[in-house]
Amino acid sequence: MSGSGKTLRLGVAGLGTVGGGLLKLIERQAELRLPGKLEVVAVSARNKNRNRGVDIAKFRWVDDPVELALSDDIDVVVELVGGSDGPAKRTVEAALRSGKSVVSANKALIAEHGMEIAALAEKHQAHLLFEAAVAGAIPIVRAVKNSLSGVIVSRVSGILNGTCNYILSEMLRTGAAYETVLAEAQRLGYAESDPFLDVSGGDAAHKVLILAAIAFGAQPDFTQVQVEGIDKIEAMDITLANKFDYRIKLVAEAYRSGGSVRCRVAPVLVSRDHPLASVNGPLNAVVVEGEPVGRLTFTGPGAGAGPTAAAVMGDLARLFEGPATPPLGKPSRELAAVITAADSTNDQGSFFIGAKLADKPGMFAALTEELAEAGVSIDKLIQESAGDTGAAPVAIMTHPCPRASVEKALAKIAALKITADEPRLLRIETRA
Amino acid sequence: MSGSGKTLRLGVAGLGTVGGGLLKLIERQAELRLPGKLEVVAVSARNKNRNRGVDIAKFRWVDDPVELALSDDIDVVVELVGGSDGPAKRTVEAALRSGKSVVSANKALIAEHGMEIAALAEKHQAHLLFEAAVAGAIPIVRAVKNSLSGVIVSRVSGILNGTCNYILSEMLRTGAAYETVLAEAQRLGYAESDPFLDVSGGDAAHKVLILAAIAFGAQPDFTQVQVEGIDKIEAMDITLANKFDYRIKLVAEAYRSGGSVRCRVAPVLVSRDHPLASVNGPLNAVVVEGEPVGRLTFTGPGAGAGPTAAAVMGDLARLFEGPATPPLGKPSRELAAVITAADSTNDQGSFFIGAKLADKPGMFAALTEELAEAGVSIDKLIQESAGDTGAAPVAIMTHPCPRASVEKALAKIAALKITADEPRLLRIETRA
Repeated sequence: MSGSGKTLRLGVAGLGTVGGGLLKLIERQAELRLPGKLEVVAVSARNKNRNRGVDIAKFRWVDDPVELALSDDIDVVVELVGGSDGPAKRTVEAALRSGKSVVSANKALIAEHGMEIAALAEKHQAHLLFEAAVAGAIPIVRAVKNSLSGVIVSRVSGILNGTCNYILSEMLRTGAAYETVLAEAQRLGYAESDPFLDVSGGDAAHKVLILAAIAFGAQPDFTQVQVEGIDKIEAMDITLANKFDYRIKLVAEAYRSGGSVRCRVAPVLVSRDHPLASVNGPLNAVVVEGEPVGRLTFTGPGAGAGPTAAAVMGDLARLFEGPATPPLGKPSRELAAVITAADSTNDQGSFFIGAKLADKPGMFAALTEELAEAGVSIDKLIQESAGDTGAAPVAIMTHPCPRASVEKALAKIAALKITADEPRLLRIETRA
Repeated sequence: MSGSGKTLRLGVAGLGTVGGGLLKLIERQAELRLPGKLEVVAVSARNKNRNRGVDIAKFRWVDDPVELALSDDIDVVVELVGGSDGPAKRTVEAALRSGKSVVSANKALIAEHGMEIAALAEKHQAHLLFEAAVAGAIPIVRAVKNSLSGVIVSRVSGILNGTCNYILSEMLRTGAAYETVLAEAQRLGYAESDPFLDVSGGDAAHKVLILAAIAFGAQPDFTQVQVEGIDKIEAMDITLANKFDYRIKLVAEAYRSGGSVRCRVAPVLVSRDHPLASVNGPLNAVVVEGEPVGRLTFTGPGAGAGPTAAAVMGDLARLFEGPATPPLGKPSRELAAVITAADSTNDQGSFFIGAKLADKPGMFAALTEELAEAGVSIDKLIQESAGDTGAAPVAIMTHPCPRASVEKALAKIAALKITADEPRLLRIETRA
């Protein structure tokens, strides 16, 4: 039958954590259930001499990964370089142009240049697979693209960044400040030395945009994703939200709204019973909702050498199965849905406000007066003692109202210097 | 690219709940993301005139589903007849022999005749896909077969029967007796009028055997699956287990044990924090564990017209993608792992005993003495008042010991007529 027994010759570009994990897994291929054989022919990385726990001397070394794309003895280029541009993009493009299959873990590349690269793959009838770009070991890309192509998806949402989820989980567990937990996460290898792409929400935005493009048949357009990170969340927000029986999670979501698709990433309050509330530590989770299935939830490790390498391996297995199909499910020219950045000030809903109130007489009255003035009605409120900090932690959950009203009140509150810090305004997820 | 724009002509055998759901979903195919078109050419069912909410007059009707398999104007036979033998098997075999693709939701057929039918599909290079046979809308068959073929699976486990899970969840929620809840489940359509295959554990056993065959590269052998159902569980067992902070769930599992694969279904106590503990009502869940990914969990609706039809649709979409691959992942002749029914009396572990103690002096002492005698040490124990029932509910959790010791004690206890009923002996899952 198809592909069985065939050998695929690989060129691996990028030998960091994931690349090392992949080489180790390929060494164990006899224990796997691949439909054929994998043979690593050549490798490329920035540093030839780094210790990876794998002997790379038996592979041909090339300095420029683009050479892998141009080598006649390579069938598949595995791109683990990363980055939306530069050598990763050049390598992938060169490989596709020469009709080679590409397996990539590069979410930035697919999210930011997906249309261009998908069209290139289609033109050259080459495979372009990127399971490892989204949610690590969770096989969600192929699930949404193929298995669930008989589902009319209404929403894809989830926890797509393990670093942020680890930090938020630890801030709840320990009560420690964001900076303290981030430093610990870096020490443990859960956060990069430059954590910006993770904590800013950019990484989760890349991933949810890829899922949105496939699930809704939309052109990926990264400029239209609304992104808010976790770097302004205070430990007090998490602790007080917990007292309301809510968790703060960095939720990435894409859903149909009117005639278009909306795509956003933000820290959100979810109730303790919400399926995402119990996803803790570096885990990822994806929830797919649609007709006629209701809700499907996928949970698993979202990063790390092993999980990501296994996802790459799943894509390599696909190459034995048959000819290439369009990378984003539908052919790129048929991606008709449009992702639009709706203005979040038009949002209606319940909101969470967290702030430290200046410890002076009348501040609490002034705060609540400004909210009332703007038509924002308070559902629940906690104020804790200022102790000797000179500022009293306050958390408010509002009744449903326009986000614009809360923003208006917060602008006036800022002008009046009622709070000792910049208040945090977070959406409360009210869907179960 | 591959398959795009092609039309597949279907013959649908079986028009019950799932068949009706499929015809409705096919009518909405413009809203789906299929790579080509589906056209229903002919249908077959036991009763032509039943109201299905879909107009079947536009399809050719055949009385014998085998005719679908022999028709020249049909490319794919969708088998929704059910049953391990009879017309379902005849239809599938005839279709494969004529080189037609088969999509089936028939777990009994695949579990009991998987080797034979897979070999037939391979011989005729025909697709045989059965995503809908396991866990409804959860795309677990393709995930394990393809996406996770780069994972060395150590265990597949889960809640694979929605009827049993609904009954156990409701018994906990309401405290009602098994018979009462079963009758309610039948009224709501969550249980068949003949519930035997569900409540006996047989249905879950079919499903886990299919997953085991694929995950471990094993020959499916239904005679080797250990099966225990939920029909002897008393409401008191569930209530008292809950007081120990445990849930009783019908757990299906397959795992490597020594050189072979063990496959079993039984009601088991899982701690409240266990990933399966919070899977309630008619939901299904599958947990895949292995190297180098750790644990992946998939949750969703395990049955019903819509979810099952969507799973069938996912298989139909696969047909556009390329040539057939072996139905069980590996070619059937290469399925080397063996499923063996290890004797459960060799089990070591902690156990739960639930019973009603005769309300006479000395019964409690006699019970605990027999356990001590057999070397079974008690970890936790609850005895409730007999009230006016004449029998006191007792629940015991043992320290780790051989199952054989507990069975020996229970045999002596039965002989002494210490209990008013036959005690229930359940395994406690100690893995997190």
